[in-house]
Amino acid sequence: MPIHSPRRDAEPGRNGQSPAAKRLARLRARMEKEKIGSILITTLSNVQYLTGFTGSAGSLLVTAGGSIFFTDSRYDIQAREEVSGSHVEIVKSDSMTAAAKRAGRGRGGRVGFESGTVSFQGHKRLRELAPRARLVPTVGVVEELRVEKDADEIEKIRKAVALGSRALEETLPLLRPGMTELEVAAEIEYRMRRYGGEGPSFETIVATGPRAALPHARATTRRIRPNEFILLDLGVILGGYVSDMTRTVFLGKAPARAVRIYRAVKEAVEEAEQAVQAGRSGEDLDKAARKVLRRYGYEQYFTHSLGHGVGREVHELPRVSRGQKAPLPEGAAITIEPGVYLEGYGGVRIEDIVIVRKGSGDVLTPTSKELMEL
Amino acid sequence: MPIHSPRRDAEPGRNGQSPAAKRLARLRARMEKEKIGSILITTLSNVQYLTGFTGSAGSLLVTAGGSIFFTDSRYDIQAREEVSGSHVEIVKSDSMTAAAKRAGRGRGGRVGFESGTVSFQGHKRLRELAPRARLVPTVGVVEELRVEKDADEIEKIRKAVALGSRALEETLPLLRPGMTELEVAAEIEYRMRRYGGEGPSFETIVATGPRAALPHARATTRRIRPNEFILLDLGVILGGYVSDMTRTVFLGKAPARAVRIYRAVKEAVEEAEQAVQAGRSGEDLDKAARKVLRRYGYEQYFTHSLGHGVGREVHELPRVSRGQKAPLPEGAAITIEPGVYLEGYGGVRIEDIVIVRKGSGDVLTPTSKELMEL
Repeated sequence: MPIHSPRRDAEPGRNGQSPAAKRLARLRARMEKEKIGSILITTLSNVQYLTGFTGSAGSLLVTAGGSIFFTDSRYDIQAREEVSGSHVEIVKSDSMTAAAKRAGRGRGGRVGFESGTVSFQGHKRLRELAPRARLVPTVGVVEELRVEKDADEIEKIRKAVALGSRALEETLPLLRPGMTELEVAAEIEYRMRRYGGEGPSFETIVATGPRAALPHARATTRRIRPNEFILLDLGVILGGYVSDMTRTVFLGKAPARAVRIYRAVKEAVEEAEQAVQAGRSGEDLDKAARKVLRRYGYEQYFTHSLGHGVGREVHELPRVSRGQKAPLPEGAAITIEPGVYLEGYGGVRIEDIVIVRKGSGDVLTPTSKELMEL
Repeated sequence: MPIHSPRRDAEPGRNGQSPAAKRLARLRARMEKEKIGSILITTLSNVQYLTGFTGSAGSLLVTAGGSIFFTDSRYDIQAREEVSGSHVEIVKSDSMTAAAKRAGRGRGGRVGFESGTVSFQGHKRLRELAPRARLVPTVGVVEELRVEKDADEIEKIRKAVALGSRALEETLPLLRPGMTELEVAAEIEYRMRRYGGEGPSFETIVATGPRAALPHARATTRRIRPNEFILLDLGVILGGYVSDMTRTVFLGKAPARAVRIYRAVKEAVEEAEQAVQAGRSGEDLDKAARKVLRRYGYEQYFTHSLGHGVGREVHELPRVSRGQKAPLPEGAAITIEPGVYLEGYGGVRIEDIVIVRKGSGDVLTPTSKELMEL
């Protein structure tokens, strides 16, 4: 894959009302509250969120009165097509340099920068490029805006979720004893890609038999055997948004112990999903799931967080686990994914994506949660 | 995919001679030169390089006398199996916090940190965790060590390259008019994964017809048509190392113009590959390729760098382009990838991975560079 050396000259972009423009308005409200006259956005996922741009290089300078998106000549046509709410400038230097220089042109006011992602060295360069600006470290400003998904984003997540479910559901009938975990992962990822996904949002987990007790098991050359659980955890990137789902199936007729573990996890995920509504906290949902697992005597085998926020990244805000007492806002997209892991035996995890609504949760994942015996 | 909350206690690791231990010795020589008593390594690819660890969370503290690798309980067994040259400590906090605290225990000497990847906020935390240490920003220390690949690394790159070539060569016979670019990408990535790869090292580029003139085109739903170039640029991750290759094929019998463009690029890549040897610079190789293209009248249509270093990442040091006058060292792994792009018509790029040796280059990519008419 080649490296580019941009060449062309700057040209002005165009404006328009759009999801991106509305997101910029929310950012400006936040900037006003924090008394920041302008802010440099250099984290790619945040730049994409605020502009609609889908390319992989660009920086944004947002002021009270305007917003300028800087990128290089590779993205000239694409930026003009995709970006709304910001002026597009094609620059020869790297986009962060251009944005910082422009920020430095101001009268020396407070200029926010993303201190969790700008490196120590990057900050030093910002100071050199914008010596008159008073650089103000900000943390998670855009990430917090991103918690509340708008209709456009929820639609994109819904499409990614549908694609992930389709890839899994079409693969399940192919599972046979003797196939390797890697082959199963390859079949799933093949379908993600073939149906238009940009790629998996993480390395697909296919964990069979005792390996299903390892929550982060990678697919290996282990062959599927009869009378074992197969845990499948997968996600796809589509239109810049990700899906994330887990199903656990049984190869053959499940014995009583397997059925009981499965039933406990299924009830736990359903109970937590029924508890979802704006105003409830991550801890509230975690408690709902744990209560079910405790009743079955499996609570100690649920060793990870109940879920996490999801959107442009597989793991983003809000946190959904014990100790998270902040109320979940309407529009948050979260996973609910309790699991029970018995060392040496196997494990079960079931995971959906749920949108937090007023008074309820909207489960996006269409795949059945009934125990599938293949 | 679940988020973990580590729980177990620290245990000591084990030492041993290994590629990792030799790399640590090179790092210590560099630290001595820079008068840094200890260094915090927090960039994952650098941590992996110096330890042999393949998991996705860990930090390293290297001192003149020892080296400690910190990770959480998810990676307990894996770290003990994989890490050599460093003691393994399993910690409850995040690994960077643990490493920084340990660095702060010293007598207040100079402690290097990776200032190109540690965030502004991360640096602030380092200062709080190790208040007595004199934090010294370093830039690219391990990245520069990584330029000279050792035998273990070259073997891993060779395997990744062979897998990429296999995935491409098995896919080419499937190409038919009517297939979409995305379907072609899906077939290639399916084979990468099925044969054991961790996944593509970047989103596979399949650019047909006029789209082959866009060096970074993503695969789309455009259907392959007869009498067009198809440019395929792909890479796979295997054992933590990546491949990167490009071939351009013609669907049908190539007319004279297409043959001439192809011949120019093929001669350019061959000429540059023959020029490879330790001591020559990136600019020397670039000149060798451009000289050929100039003879054909195509030089102005070669709009990107000749190549780049490759290893754990698709784009790493050394730089291989105009203006790069530093001699390439023995053991460097680079791509050679000239291209000619004619807007509205199409483009040709051919890309191999080459190891820089004394007196010559070792082309790893086994796939033929003859014009394939499918």
